[in-house]
Amino acid sequence: MTRIALLGCGRIGRMHAEIIAAHPRAKLAGVFDVHSPSSEEVAVRLGVLQYDSPEAAFASDADAVLIATPTATHVDFIKAAVAANKAVLCEKPVDLDFARARQCAEDVKEASAPIMIGFCRRFDPGHRAARDAHRNGQLGELHQVVITSRDPGMAPDGYIETSGGIFRDMTIHDLDLARFMLDEEVTHVTATGARLIAPALMERCGDYDTVTVILTTASGKQAIITNSREAVYGYDQRVELFGSGGMALSDNHRENAAEVWGQGFTRHAAPLQHFFIERYRAAFVAEIDNFVDACAGTAVPEASLEDGVKALALAEACFRSIAEARTIAVKDV
Amino acid sequence: MTRIALLGCGRIGRMHAEIIAAHPRAKLAGVFDVHSPSSEEVAVRLGVLQYDSPEAAFASDADAVLIATPTATHVDFIKAAVAANKAVLCEKPVDLDFARARQCAEDVKEASAPIMIGFCRRFDPGHRAARDAHRNGQLGELHQVVITSRDPGMAPDGYIETSGGIFRDMTIHDLDLARFMLDEEVTHVTATGARLIAPALMERCGDYDTVTVILTTASGKQAIITNSREAVYGYDQRVELFGSGGMALSDNHRENAAEVWGQGFTRHAAPLQHFFIERYRAAFVAEIDNFVDACAGTAVPEASLEDGVKALALAEACFRSIAEARTIAVKDV
Amino acid sequence: MTRIALLGCGRIGRMHAEIIAAHPRAKLAGVFDVHSPSSEEVAVRLGVLQYDSPEAAFASDADAVLIATPTATHVDFIKAAVAANKAVLCEKPVDLDFARARQCAEDVKEASAPIMIGFCRRFDPGHRAARDAHRNGQLGELHQVVITSRDPGMAPDGYIETSGGIFRDMTIHDLDLARFMLDEEVTHVTATGARLIAPALMERCGDYDTVTVILTTASGKQAIITNSREAVYGYDQRVELFGSGGMALSDNHRENAAEVWGQGFTRHAAPLQHFFIERYRAAFVAEIDNFVDACAGTAVPEASLEDGVKALALAEACFRSIAEARTIAVKDV
Amino acid sequence: MTRIALLGCGRIGRMHAEIIAAHPRAKLAGVFDVHSPSSEEVAVRLGVLQYDSPEAAFASDADAVLIATPTATHVDFIKAAVAANKAVLCEKPVDLDFARARQCAEDVKEASAPIMIGFCRRFDPGHRAARDAHRNGQLGELHQVVITSRDPGMAPDGYIETSGGIFRDMTIHDLDLARFMLDEEVTHVTATGARLIAPALMERCGDYDTVTVILTTASGKQAIITNSREAVYGYDQRVELFGSGGMALSDNHRENAAEVWGQGFTRHAAPLQHFFIERYRAAFVAEIDNFVDACAGTAVPEASLEDGVKALALAEACFRSIAEARTIAVKDV
Repeated sequence: MTRIALLGCGRIGRMHAEIIAAHPRAKLAGVFDVHSPSSEEVAVRLGVLQYDSPEAAFASDADAVLIATPTATHVDFIKAAVAANKAVLCEKPVDLDFARARQCAEDVKEASAPIMIGFCRRFDPGHRAARDAHRNGQLGELHQVVITSRDPGMAPDGYIETSGGIFRDMTIHDLDLARFMLDEEVTHVTATGARLIAPALMERCGDYDTVTVILTTASGKQAIITNSREAVYGYDQRVELFGSGGMALSDNHRENAAEVWGQGFTRHAAPLQHFFIERYRAAFVAEIDNFVDACAGTAVPEASLEDGVKALALAEACFRSIAEARTIAVKDV
Repeated sequence: MTRIALLGCGRIGRMHAEIIAAHPRAKLAGVFDVHSPSSEEVAVRLGVLQYDSPEAAFASDADAVLIATPTATHVDFIKAAVAANKAVLCEKPVDLDFARARQCAEDVKEASAPIMIGFCRRFDPGHRAARDAHRNGQLGELHQVVITSRDPGMAPDGYIETSGGIFRDMTIHDLDLARFMLDEEVTHVTATGARLIAPALMERCGDYDTVTVILTTASGKQAIITNSREAVYGYDQRVELFGSGGMALSDNHRENAAEVWGQGFTRHAAPLQHFFIERYRAAFVAEIDNFVDACAGTAVPEASLEDGVKALALAEACFRSIAEARTIAVKDV
Repeated sequence: MTRIALLGCGRIGRMHAEIIAAHPRAKLAGVFDVHSPSSEEVAVRLGVLQYDSPEAAFASDADAVLIATPTATHVDFIKAAVAANKAVLCEKPVDLDFARARQCAEDVKEASAPIMIGFCRRFDPGHRAARDAHRNGQLGELHQVVITSRDPGMAPDGYIETSGGIFRDMTIHDLDLARFMLDEEVTHVTATGARLIAPALMERCGDYDTVTVILTTASGKQAIITNSREAVYGYDQRVELFGSGGMALSDNHRENAAEVWGQGFTRHAAPLQHFFIERYRAAFVAEIDNFVDACAGTAVPEASLEDGVKALALAEACFRSIAEARTIAVKDV
Repeated sequence: MTRIALLGCGRIGRMHAEIIAAHPRAKLAGVFDVHSPSSEEVAVRLGVLQYDSPEAAFASDADAVLIATPTATHVDFIKAAVAANKAVLCEKPVDLDFARARQCAEDVKEASAPIMIGFCRRFDPGHRAARDAHRNGQLGELHQVVITSRDPGMAPDGYIETSGGIFRDMTIHDLDLARFMLDEEVTHVTATGARLIAPALMERCGDYDTVTVILTTASGKQAIITNSREAVYGYDQRVELFGSGGMALSDNHRENAAEVWGQGFTRHAAPLQHFFIERYRAAFVAEIDNFVDACAGTAVPEASLEDGVKALALAEACFRSIAEARTIAVKDV
């Protein structure tokens, strides 16, 4: 039974709390949030401790800490958790500053307990079935990975302003997923960005709302990512693997499979699953499973701190590629 | 907060227990099973009382009883629960004997608390979206309802032998669903049955493994049900509504949306959701929701005891139709 | 090179004329229509003879006659063609009168040239792929055949009044297709009919616009046909084969594969292929292919005159089943 | 009636010949091929003249010339046809040399008869439905165009060696389609190429077999093209338009809509339509329609010589982008 302390009781923190509470081999030890009514609500509802500080969590007898607090706190909390000899599951990104993230990885490299980054998409059953088809040899040599990833709507201005930009905030999931699928390190990055949805906000933040990224590996494999911060038709999450022996795809999920056909139209009655909480529910459950197994020493974390740092390097390269209108070698980041 | 006592800790009882335990407006008060290790496991895991008899549950301070015990006990437990002034959610069928079920309904007709039958498919979001399309007028006048319902594999011999036959055990869900969709009482029943999968067993039990049923209403609407006790490709659950203004369908669900395309083939990577526990998960959750609301007086049970009796009458008519090779008037049952 | 004379230049006759004209091993010898401007238009456009009577066609040096004239003329024309030693491809149904059709088959049983009935659906590539899956053993033992067949709109009143009723006019295609798929003779027929679309017209004609048919074979196989004379969402043509080893289906065809996804909806941009001319185009081409091969002695006609008579017997049984509200043994027809 | 002379009786020429022969408002005047048995076969089969030289075609009384000869001849034939005052429909690309193609457009700019380039995909009903959704405002402001285009198998070595490279030979269709969909001129091009399928051949030819292209417009719209010279699962042809108001897609076409479902698998029974002759059949028919209308003065050619030159400029930019590992401004080509 792995006892997990949760830091951060926002939307994603609450979801993790419920999944842990229902997990047969995990126990939610306690919760903290800087906004104490939030942690109190979760503590009362699930019958667990409410910590009055992160330090209380680190000092507790929990085996592990799940960090779902704002990005700026991640590095300090990772280091504090490691110092307290606790396993760590930290939400992405590690930090907005690539150098700081890299330093963090260096600082904790002797940690004895597992450190895992919350790249939940690696655990999505559909994405994983596509990857398994590749690993099982059904696709022959992999040639191209195409990732379509569009959010259902713009985040609030305040979120955008502090997000570190689309590549560090949103594309980072796809950059990691591309690495996961390619199974070979990315050597070059080419990115294109536009300001089509909220041009004034994006201009002000030096950010983009509509981007395309091409990643290439030493052997010539390509991964293509298209992102939009707003797809009015819903949360569009697709992965396609194309190889010498075939193709695999992981398609969108709808809320149900009803259709209505009338004079001149045929339509799905149900929208795409709304957003990551709904779409990646099974993935979050499998992620906690992997983390609990890693804590028990029966599995390796699917996404390491090193993976978190590497995804940040690619995000960094995306910004540079747009700024310089050229392909960037990842080793130069 | 509705306190619910559970009778029966088999597969479906355990599922209900977990759904109730996680429900924000319900509380699992305690559990009983004639095989006490089963109830003990649930009681310990979910931290609730273990009753040592059904009577203990009826005598408890629970507001409601969920009856998930073998069919033969349903009528007695419904009556005992009503006598104890408790709300009832009883799994289908009410009884294998139509007359006994009808008498039960008569006996408890003055019950003050709600009595509900577990026709979970009425709550399936896809089936309901199809029906909503009809209720909202998108299909015009309804003409035909087509229900495809095939189990992934034969139940054990012992189950078949005591099931009351395919129409009372399996088709009963579809008979109820047809009534739910038609929105008009069925007046005539025509059925065809064959013994194609397990002929010897079916012969011995006077049962069928492959059946087709046509239901008609006074205005001429038709519902067509096709059933098989074994579909090796998976649990096939589809509903189609056809009307003067259009068509609505509720299609199958797969575990995920991955596909693999190779030389000469394109295939889904994931099978259909395995069986009712997986396929109708959302329906069972919504069913408990409706029951809790009914107990709180804020909703009417979607499926009444009367609905349970009427579905049994149709099942009865199916057997007669095959025996007499003719259409049966429901009023003659 | 098979020289084919065409009788009847209506919609289906014109389509056959064009297919024959483009066929590498066939030649359109000439055309006749009782309405001479119709035959003239085809003759001029395709550069072929215009016969001034059916007799002229029978007396010509054509090798074969394609009969696409009104149903009432079929029997006489089949007999005249056989007398003239010509091969025959006759549109369905053979006749509205079952006894007369049976007598015709008896009368021409010594014919040396092939006689074929235009059951085009047997040639549809999708339906045939489903049947091939069965014949190749991929479905194990066949249990149920489900045929959905709905016309996009009501035929004109005048057509309905002389059509012989839905079972002889429309369902006959599905009755034949069911026989083709079952691969075992039908022994019993149960039918249900309703008047929901044009009740007054149907009442006047003793006909039905919405029907369901169950066919069974000696071994217990079932075929279920649902028909409607008007599906506002388009020409709905589906076949499903269900067996001990799996399922095969032949789904609908759309004009193209475009979709539009917007806020709250996802819809196909293209309707179902409009009607039989469009939907079964490939089938009609393959049918002529089979006929030409049969004329050349290199193939057997896929649908014989005997098949035409047997489908009529089933249509006859459907009407009786409704009239008597019971299952009809085909041998009693 | 537009009389069309055909130059080139290879695969695509023969297909055009048949479409013209069956067209109600066009007449195939005669055919030429440098390999006279090829033109003889077509001439005899369709009952038209066989020219003994291209000059004979230009000197004939045909109204128009369809140029389906090898690329190297295109420019000369376009100029000769214009000199003879004939309308022109020329297969893509205009020439392998961008400067020469541009000069050709300059040379014939005073032509009185229409000049059209065979960008058939503009006429595909599915692609066009997607574009219509955009033009009709259903997608709001267009943000991204995603084109997937993969050939079913490598062309012969000899073809590759003289093709001018993947961008001029294959991608050129997608470059034109992107321009057609974007409805705004492309200003910048970024391309990535790899040699994964036939590395030695590609190395020798300075070519690529697996490429990704990003096109951007002044307003920031993006078009992303992924190409492969070999998709073993079939000819993969998809277009997706993504805008502020929704998404439109034009999906792949299969030979039919049959599926087989068995234990552990569900698969399409039919492959994707084999290659351009099959997949774009309807497009080629509509293309001839547009050309005939243009010759009659009732329509404007959907794809002009200017469009042919602009697509070549983009192809040119693709090669440069890879060579220089940077984004290329189209105005610099």
